[in-house]
Amino acid sequence: MSQQITLYSAKICPFAHRAEIALAEAKAPFTRYEIDLSNKPQWYAPKVNAASKVPAMTYGGPAVPADQPSPESTKLAESLVLVEFVGDLFPSSGIVPADPVKRAQARFFIEGVSSKLLPAYFALQMKGAPPADFYAALEYLQALLPRAEEGEGAFAVDEYSMADIAITPFLARARMSFDNDLGAWEKGEGPKMWETVTSGRFARLAKYIDDLFARESFKATWDEEYVLTGFKKHFAELRK
Amino acid sequence: MSQQITLYSAKICPFAHRAEIALAEAKAPFTRYEIDLSNKPQWYAPKVNAASKVPAMTYGGPAVPADQPSPESTKLAESLVLVEFVGDLFPSSGIVPADPVKRAQARFFIEGVSSKLLPAYFALQMKGAPPADFYAALEYLQALLPRAEEGEGAFAVDEYSMADIAITPFLARARMSFDNDLGAWEKGEGPKMWETVTSGRFARLAKYIDDLFARESFKATWDEEYVLTGFKKHFAELRK
Ligand SMILES: N[C@@H](CCC(=O)N[C@@H](CS)C(=O)NCC(=O)O)C(=O)O
Ligand SMILES: N[C@@H](CCC(=O)N[C@@H](CS)C(=O)NCC(=O)O)C(=O)O
Repeated sequence: MSQQITLYSAKICPFAHRAEIALAEAKAPFTRYEIDLSNKPQWYAPKVNAASKVPAMTYGGPAVPADQPSPESTKLAESLVLVEFVGDLFPSSGIVPADPVKRAQARFFIEGVSSKLLPAYFALQMKGAPPADFYAALEYLQALLPRAEEGEGAFAVDEYSMADIAITPFLARARMSFDNDLGAWEKGEGPKMWETVTSGRFARLAKYIDDLFARESFKATWDEEYVLTGFKKHFAELRK
Repeated sequence: MSQQITLYSAKICPFAHRAEIALAEAKAPFTRYEIDLSNKPQWYAPKVNAASKVPAMTYGGPAVPADQPSPESTKLAESLVLVEFVGDLFPSSGIVPADPVKRAQARFFIEGVSSKLLPAYFALQMKGAPPADFYAALEYLQALLPRAEEGEGAFAVDEYSMADIAITPFLARARMSFDNDLGAWEKGEGPKMWETVTSGRFARLAKYIDDLFARESFKATWDEEYVLTGFKKHFAELRK
């Protein structure tokens, strides 16, 4: 475990946020480098991630400044790959559940996040699609959650894991965007939609979201003021 | 490892084929149940997989006939989830590489298969999209392959793994469909496209494909005559 980890991240990005939560859960020592997505350093694509996206990671190799990545380190990318990688390096974190069945169930939950929730959320927020698919995706995921016992927090596969890490950054940005009415929906609809997905038939989901947002690893990696400023700017530009 | 495994599969389906290759690699004892996709048993969705797709698996629970699944067994679905699950149950199979870095690289390769190769392949074969995206996806994946040493077979992350399992069923169906000109492209183009992706700038890929198709677990699970008959019927219906 003595190999160095450098994470190239951007506070605004929900995918990068996954990797940050994983590293916080693992209490892994690492160097963090903020990439300005509107002005990426020239060395980033050729030397760290050919896809020119965050998150990306260097692992091992000699001790070098983050802005002078060594050709000798291993380069890794893709948020879900990084989350499992951190879990594999730090098995006691529980990020990758020890039990193969729980592990499979966590991956199945993540597949639902990737194939159902994210496309519906982006269509709603960016393209003004009606919220039906977004509600349906949340209902689908809610049905996968274990029943929560009174007063206990139960996560996607009971213990906190990669499944919860995969969804949290998107729910955080959804809550913030809906509250602040930042989306391609009709003015005023945002807060109503958040009300919808956290009450009534979504009671179990509401409890789950509360538990996710109460997690230390989330609180330590979520800078709402910063992300809100970025989203406001982004949506102001979109409206033009 | 004494828990029972039942796989619900369909010979024609490339996703189900992934799970079959994984079980063959692991030499796992299991019960196989063929689902007729054009006439699925009524019990299948409610008792095995709510999404009503193959592959799906039951794990553990009492010994029951495959067509009378027990409520007590664990139900799992999604091909990539099943492949990793089999790898986790049988670590010595090497399906999930032991080294965390290789594991991450295998998952990264799979992500490329899912997000680049499959959409391009389906668009080409089903919708008559031009082959440019398909070629680009193969070029991208080829660039991830380790250099092959003379006379040695090197797989996606050197040793045969889940990365190779994820791509093989699609390459097998592509090869068969192109050879037999079964696709929405212009008549006669199929064989030419297969020639393109297995020569010249695709020399490394061609070697990789040869190695994949020479693997025992593939040969034992690939019934080309059966799949070809199914594809011919399918495309004849599509043309109407
Ligand atoms: N599938 C990738 C998606 C990562 C991604 O799309 N990141 C965005 C920011 S949220 C990015 O870096 N985009 C490139 C850019 O903005 O130039 C993952 O899961 O890591
Ligand atoms: N994402 C799924 C896809 C599985 C899938 O689409 N299977 C098809 C057959 S290839 C299926 O069962 N479709 C339902 C049907 O034909 O009714 C996986 O990876 O397992």
